Amino acid sequence: MLARHNPQLNKHGELIHLLSTEGLSRDMLTHILDTAAQFVGVSEREVKKVPLLRGKSVFNLFFENSTRTRTTFDIAATRLSADVYTLDIARSSTAKGESLLDTVANLSAMAADIFVVRHSKSGAPYLLAQHVAPHVHVINAGDGRHAHPTQGLLDMYTIRHYKKDFSGLVVAIVGDVLHSRVARSDIHALTTLGAAEVRVVGPRTLVPGDLAPMGVRVCHTLEEGIKDADVVIMLRLQNERMSGALLPSSQEFFQSFGLTSERLRWAKPDAIVMHPGPINRGVEIDSQVVDGAQSVILPQVTFGIAVRMAVMSIVAGNEA
Amino acid sequence: MLARHNPQLNKHGELIHLLSTEGLSRDMLTHILDTAAQFVGVSEREVKKVPLLRGKSVFNLFFENSTRTRTTFDIAATRLSADVYTLDIARSSTAKGESLLDTVANLSAMAADIFVVRHSKSGAPYLLAQHVAPHVHVINAGDGRHAHPTQGLLDMYTIRHYKKDFSGLVVAIVGDVLHSRVARSDIHALTTLGAAEVRVVGPRTLVPGDLAPMGVRVCHTLEEGIKDADVVIMLRLQNERMSGALLPSSQEFFQSFGLTSERLRWAKPDAIVMHPGPINRGVEIDSQVVDGAQSVILPQVTFGIAVRMAVMSIVAGNEA
Amino acid sequence: MLARHNPQLNKHGELIHLLSTEGLSRDMLTHILDTAAQFVGVSEREVKKVPLLRGKSVFNLFFENSTRTRTTFDIAATRLSADVYTLDIARSSTAKGESLLDTVANLSAMAADIFVVRHSKSGAPYLLAQHVAPHVHVINAGDGRHAHPTQGLLDMYTIRHYKKDFSGLVVAIVGDVLHSRVARSDIHALTTLGAAEVRVVGPRTLVPGDLAPMGVRVCHTLEEGIKDADVVIMLRLQNERMSGALLPSSQEFFQSFGLTSERLRWAKPDAIVMHPGPINRGVEIDSQVVDGAQSVILPQVTFGIAVRMAVMSIVAGNEA
Repeated sequence: MLARHNPQLNKHGELIHLLSTEGLSRDMLTHILDTAAQFVGVSEREVKKVPLLRGKSVFNLFFENSTRTRTTFDIAATRLSADVYTLDIARSSTAKGESLLDTVANLSAMAADIFVVRHSKSGAPYLLAQHVAPHVHVINAGDGRHAHPTQGLLDMYTIRHYKKDFSGLVVAIVGDVLHSRVARSDIHALTTLGAAEVRVVGPRTLVPGDLAPMGVRVCHTLEEGIKDADVVIMLRLQNERMSGALLPSSQEFFQSFGLTSERLRWAKPDAIVMHPGPINRGVEIDSQVVDGAQSVILPQVTFGIAVRMAVMSIVAGNEA
Repeated sequence: MLARHNPQLNKHGELIHLLSTEGLSRDMLTHILDTAAQFVGVSEREVKKVPLLRGKSVFNLFFENSTRTRTTFDIAATRLSADVYTLDIARSSTAKGESLLDTVANLSAMAADIFVVRHSKSGAPYLLAQHVAPHVHVINAGDGRHAHPTQGLLDMYTIRHYKKDFSGLVVAIVGDVLHSRVARSDIHALTTLGAAEVRVVGPRTLVPGDLAPMGVRVCHTLEEGIKDADVVIMLRLQNERMSGALLPSSQEFFQSFGLTSERLRWAKPDAIVMHPGPINRGVEIDSQVVDGAQSVILPQVTFGIAVRMAVMSIVAGNEA
Repeated sequence: MLARHNPQLNKHGELIHLLSTEGLSRDMLTHILDTAAQFVGVSEREVKKVPLLRGKSVFNLFFENSTRTRTTFDIAATRLSADVYTLDIARSSTAKGESLLDTVANLSAMAADIFVVRHSKSGAPYLLAQHVAPHVHVINAGDGRHAHPTQGLLDMYTIRHYKKDFSGLVVAIVGDVLHSRVARSDIHALTTLGAAEVRVVGPRTLVPGDLAPMGVRVCHTLEEGIKDADVVIMLRLQNERMSGALLPSSQEFFQSFGLTSERLRWAKPDAIVMHPGPINRGVEIDSQVVDGAQSVILPQVTFGIAVRMAVMSIVAGNEA
């Protein structure tokens, strides 16, 4: 996809858009995580704001609804002192027949600095990045099944926080890999950062065999999948994205792949359990695990703010 | 309900959540009203802001829609220099099956300071207050038929502003008491602050006889109800909450209990008329009264901002 | 309409509301444009904000939906450092049967400074201006078919920017003039500012002959209409406002009145092409023209922010 030219980088190799974890070097990923580490402290201060983006305009363009992700970007931008504008796209001019590119050209003309874009079509943020004015930066907040790079980065931040180093790590990604842009972003980042083994785990209908070329090991039983793993990333069963034939019942899925306290013992004793949320308790993961000692699901949320602050401050500081 | 332990107070007896006017001492109520008095002036200044909550994050969680109340909290928080995030809960992760407590745990992990909660289920804000992280404060913006404490407090502020003292006051609450969380919050506060008599006034279907144990006098005619009253609080006829059998037609209601200029003469000549809004002109109250010299309905709105600023600044200053 | 008393001006002749370009003097229009010129630079600065409205409360009251216009007012107010509150009117108390004037009286009581109002009924902002408290200023963001004065003013700003002077200018307004509040606001402003000739151009169903008394020339062919014009303002074909009989098919309209590169040669070689957006490419205007060298459609958007900043800062500085 990013054959010769990587549209995320300027000619100096600096990050100007965040579209995917694919194509970002280990140094770049590490730079983002290091920057995020500085912002984790901000949330603990009495006044949680820094003036890095003061006077900048961040536009939340959510063509696909997500209160959770939108809110985290809203918070991250606000703590950087930016002004945040959230457009209710479903009711906007695109509904009057205006094209995506015309909408974005208009917003650029309003002196936008950053577009945070979620879209149901894979590749939509790339299209925007190719057409925005030079002063505008695009951050992909999830496009179709393709990528969700800030979730991938916050997952990396969380793993590094608890495991210190990626080398030697066995990471299992369990569940609905087929529909998951989170899985794709995690796999690219983990591979680049040097994880020892990345496994994708689930039934054949949700974990296609042709993922092997991505450098992952495909497992069709939970025991094989999380055996001696250091990190277990449970994915949300995205019922709303599935068509009938592929859809396992929630009960069936839980019986074979649901993560319970007993099954978690297959992993290393100090394994951490992650989940991008929102959680279906009792579908892909048992409540005892969610609320248990190995769960780092809520810290993921906290780190997510810091990672988004890092990405926004980095791209805004670089010239196209 | 608040038998031994009052979840609104910390071990030093300081207010950390506002869930109900029930269980708050006369001193605490007076402290809130005194604090509000300082903020009334802020709205009259050239720059209407104070930096008391600068860098704090206030989340508006309206599980039941209310543009009016949400806006007053938004304004109050903004004038305290807080950052306000409004979540469109109807479209959020709770719609994807996430539980209320998971939603709130996630928001806590984003370093929230205050949750302003409206919910159609009585008790929902209590549930949240029991489960939020220690740094988070919950303010009830209306739960089912149970309580609407900031409305109760702004009503007390208004009464004290015009009548100076509660002792000796006769206060009539007229209309749909059965469905009214405002009535409940007013009754608890008036009783604690020492009003001489609180009357609840309306047809048997809307004013059940079993309210007497709350220390109120139940009246089934308007004349008896507002006779020589100092304060007349008209409630909104909440058609949208009533089921068929209980529902008086608007016309019937107005004929028996609608407040007109003539009927208002039954009350004391200097009686004030209040209403929580939105008003149904010609249903529970005549336009002449709404716009008349004894109406303090718009000052209630103004005081409401100050009271909400007071509550937010007080709870945010106390440790759980 | 504004016979003796102009409700937009106080007794000193200063602007306190912006309801229409009709009735504003050439000096007043020029004052607004000169003020806007100072704000164009603000958008190009590193920090795009000025503290002129710090602590002021701006309420966006959009009774008719418009993401685009609402966003530009939101940006303009934010860059003046005001606090902006957007009310989702469709779901608000007016839906519970509260009247427009009661809603607005309540908002006034919350210490509002500016109401930005869009309403489907012509004249609604006038009604509000007559009833708001003296400290509140009303800005019309489009009322029915009547007026859209900030769009008119930004059009004037754009014309002055590219043509320097209005005297001697021939300006053609093309398309659905019948339903266009933009056209009305442009015509009043152009006439007052001294344009040599204003033409309205379109089929008889969309350009009624009785517009002539407004001081415009009515043309029913595109060639006659834009012949030697200095400025061509294309209007959006507002399919959503038309009833069956009047509705030309998009194809029919484009065949007779669609602006193509070839047809644009009828105008002066240095003519500029404007459009209020959102554009229907291929309906009223060809993509080649939209993206061509004579198009100033995106600069219109940029100037629109500055013009709205100018209007808000001017009205907020004057006493009623």
